[in-house]
Amino acid sequence: MDDSRIGSRFYFIAKMKDQIPIDLVVTGAKILTLDEHFTEYDPGVIHIIGNRIHHIGPDDAAQQAVKARRILHADGRIIIPALFNSHNHAGMSIFRGLGNDLSLDGWLNHFIWPAEKRFISPETVYIGSLISMMEMIRSGTGTFSDMYFFEEEVARAADKIGMRAILGEGVMDFPTPSHPAAFATLRHTREMFNEFQDHPLITISVAAHAPYTCSPDVIRKAAELAKELNICSNIHLSETIKEVETITSRYGKSPAKYLSDLGFLGPQTVAHHGLYFNDEDLDILAESGTTTATITNSNMKLGSGSLQLKKLTKKGIHVSIGTDGPASNNHQSMIRELQEVARVQKVIYQDPTVITPPELLKMATINGAQGYGMGQQLGSLEVGKLADITIIDPGGPHWYPPFDPYNTIAYAMHSGDVESVIINGQLVMEQRVFPNIDEEEILDQFRKISQQIRQEIHQP
Amino acid sequence: MDDSRIGSRFYFIAKMKDQIPIDLVVTGAKILTLDEHFTEYDPGVIHIIGNRIHHIGPDDAAQQAVKARRILHADGRIIIPALFNSHNHAGMSIFRGLGNDLSLDGWLNHFIWPAEKRFISPETVYIGSLISMMEMIRSGTGTFSDMYFFEEEVARAADKIGMRAILGEGVMDFPTPSHPAAFATLRHTREMFNEFQDHPLITISVAAHAPYTCSPDVIRKAAELAKELNICSNIHLSETIKEVETITSRYGKSPAKYLSDLGFLGPQTVAHHGLYFNDEDLDILAESGTTTATITNSNMKLGSGSLQLKKLTKKGIHVSIGTDGPASNNHQSMIRELQEVARVQKVIYQDPTVITPPELLKMATINGAQGYGMGQQLGSLEVGKLADITIIDPGGPHWYPPFDPYNTIAYAMHSGDVESVIINGQLVMEQRVFPNIDEEEILDQFRKISQQIRQEIHQP
Repeated sequence: MDDSRIGSRFYFIAKMKDQIPIDLVVTGAKILTLDEHFTEYDPGVIHIIGNRIHHIGPDDAAQQAVKARRILHADGRIIIPALFNSHNHAGMSIFRGLGNDLSLDGWLNHFIWPAEKRFISPETVYIGSLISMMEMIRSGTGTFSDMYFFEEEVARAADKIGMRAILGEGVMDFPTPSHPAAFATLRHTREMFNEFQDHPLITISVAAHAPYTCSPDVIRKAAELAKELNICSNIHLSETIKEVETITSRYGKSPAKYLSDLGFLGPQTVAHHGLYFNDEDLDILAESGTTTATITNSNMKLGSGSLQLKKLTKKGIHVSIGTDGPASNNHQSMIRELQEVARVQKVIYQDPTVITPPELLKMATINGAQGYGMGQQLGSLEVGKLADITIIDPGGPHWYPPFDPYNTIAYAMHSGDVESVIINGQLVMEQRVFPNIDEEEILDQFRKISQQIRQEIHQP
Repeated sequence: MDDSRIGSRFYFIAKMKDQIPIDLVVTGAKILTLDEHFTEYDPGVIHIIGNRIHHIGPDDAAQQAVKARRILHADGRIIIPALFNSHNHAGMSIFRGLGNDLSLDGWLNHFIWPAEKRFISPETVYIGSLISMMEMIRSGTGTFSDMYFFEEEVARAADKIGMRAILGEGVMDFPTPSHPAAFATLRHTREMFNEFQDHPLITISVAAHAPYTCSPDVIRKAAELAKELNICSNIHLSETIKEVETITSRYGKSPAKYLSDLGFLGPQTVAHHGLYFNDEDLDILAESGTTTATITNSNMKLGSGSLQLKKLTKKGIHVSIGTDGPASNNHQSMIRELQEVARVQKVIYQDPTVITPPELLKMATINGAQGYGMGQQLGSLEVGKLADITIIDPGGPHWYPPFDPYNTIAYAMHSGDVESVIINGQLVMEQRVFPNIDEEEILDQFRKISQQIRQEIHQP
């Protein structure tokens, strides 16, 4: 397998009006654009100016004359849009493995919420999130949506490593590690919106935790804030039967209806899990344009259930994919996550034709972006869109025979096949190396924090 | 993270009667023995003489004085028994990705069986199997049970790379790529038994394909051969509802009863899949001592269904784990396979407590060995057993916090964390490198075969 040669050419300042200085050219790869026609180029070329795709097309003889600040030779590689992780709690890597083999309820109440009180701080969130971002980028993800605490630290980490992030400070009725009450969290959300408005990588979201942790007034205020600022929102929804029973008993309606009546659902809202929708819920979701993010590995690990994809897609509901946090998966790989979606849907319907690899890739890219109102900017490789690109090395034996790259991605690819990732036009990982961070130093800090947690956690 | 330093000491020929020359010492790691008490040593040491474990225990000060032909410093590593893959069709890597998203029936009849007629030969089986073995060893597997054609080529490949293999030439009513009829296959099985009796890595098995491809006479003769030679046997069993209907309609009994009445089941028999057992079948399996190998990823991908583990274990039926062939998974990793078992069982019972990581590891090691009558020799790290050992690097961020290695293996480990594998006392993979094969040359041959198949497959 040829090594990817990173060459460079002279950078010519444009003297002639029609000569555009190109920052980065990626050549030689098989490109799966994931546009609405599933256009492919083989070999293809991408020209990036600033943070956007300026040109994408066949890598033909004319391309030889192209000059750019840098040329990335990706001969024999496979290129896809960087994956979009619709749901995460990245800072929770510090709790990975804590509290084994428990239901969601027991895990949250007996392990996680007490542990968060003790250990969640700006420092641990920064390091923990950075660790998760390293795992995410290493497995081809370019954007993730986070719901946690001290989100400005997550922003700092994302900025450091160069990753795109949608950040929501978790809104709950009761005190969180970062805020004493919901009103304070919402105010903080507004402050973050102001602070990061022009940041190229950071988008602020209103993140209400769940129907069972947010009273009607809180949901209403959260919805109003999202509308006022015209930003996306997200929430856990109908993850367990217990949640449905609790909300029905409390408010006399389903969790989806509860949110809808308070104005929370909409075309820039993403609902995570969505395992227990009734027929009316499905109509509500479809009419509101809310996207459901399926969180398969977590649903399995916590024994919550399985999403019935066909019920949602039949109603025209968009479905995207998320990994959940590293403490309830326990990996952070969108490659493995989309592979899991395939398997689960095939087996619950006992029908291998129920979902196809191209559909899966859409769920892991453009559907994710659309859910958060970013579908015009991201999620496919098209002229004018942001340059978020994943470059895969298909050299391993499991990529052969090379019948169909979509098929291989869906059923055989390893996360470790991801070679390089471009986010916002920048190479944030090159040949598996992160140019923007000192990986060993971060791992070292993370290990220290982990050891400390491990020792303290067993003390009363 | 310290690098694993491979040092060496002088080898002293034993002059004194009580001085034993040790071939390989592995020091410094956390050892999970998977013995019946789940004994652990941290740090631990293993002494290997020839192909067996001579000593295993704490790596204390006294160990400093030990002399050996070679010392492998595995400081900070995690050691487990090499994994045991109970079911594979290794040569099918040449068909990976062929025929997308089809049911078992359509896939076999319209793609695989026609393709096998054209492309399965000694050459393609040798290369295809070697490719699968590379993937298996890279993900920590030491032994696999194969059911395919030209199994003496698989033996040649296993011998080349140094992998332990249980080989069964697939017995069917109709002509196979290697034999015109069942009687010829059974005769060949006997010949292979004679040829490989003393081979340290190769065990021959009687491999009848399935109840729906083997008539009563063939099953009976296969069972008799296994009894006569006192060797293990294996078969696909109750993989689909259609199989149950077919057998019931043909013979007026369930597939399990069909086999049992013909004498095929027993304590050295492994039945693959086992998705559709009725209550009587469960009793039959329990009484006969037959092991069921669960083949989770394949069951999902082909939409066949899910094993109901509790129903089997409640009756005392042993359950092991297998990957199936690379064309119906499509990976070959027992790490990912055992992780999938965990998720599926938790979600089908909607109960995360239904299975624990230590149980999973047993299913992936000692249960596999016991199924094939090798439980005294393999499957756990104990004095006197064969030295089949997997050495894992737990340095990646997903291994932290280090609360519980069983937990991490079950939920977060990547196949790529496997660093070195010892099989039969020999290092068959060291720091991800295979000392016994030219990997690039094999990949090259495999790619040529793959490309050829890809071109020809679309011609009439």
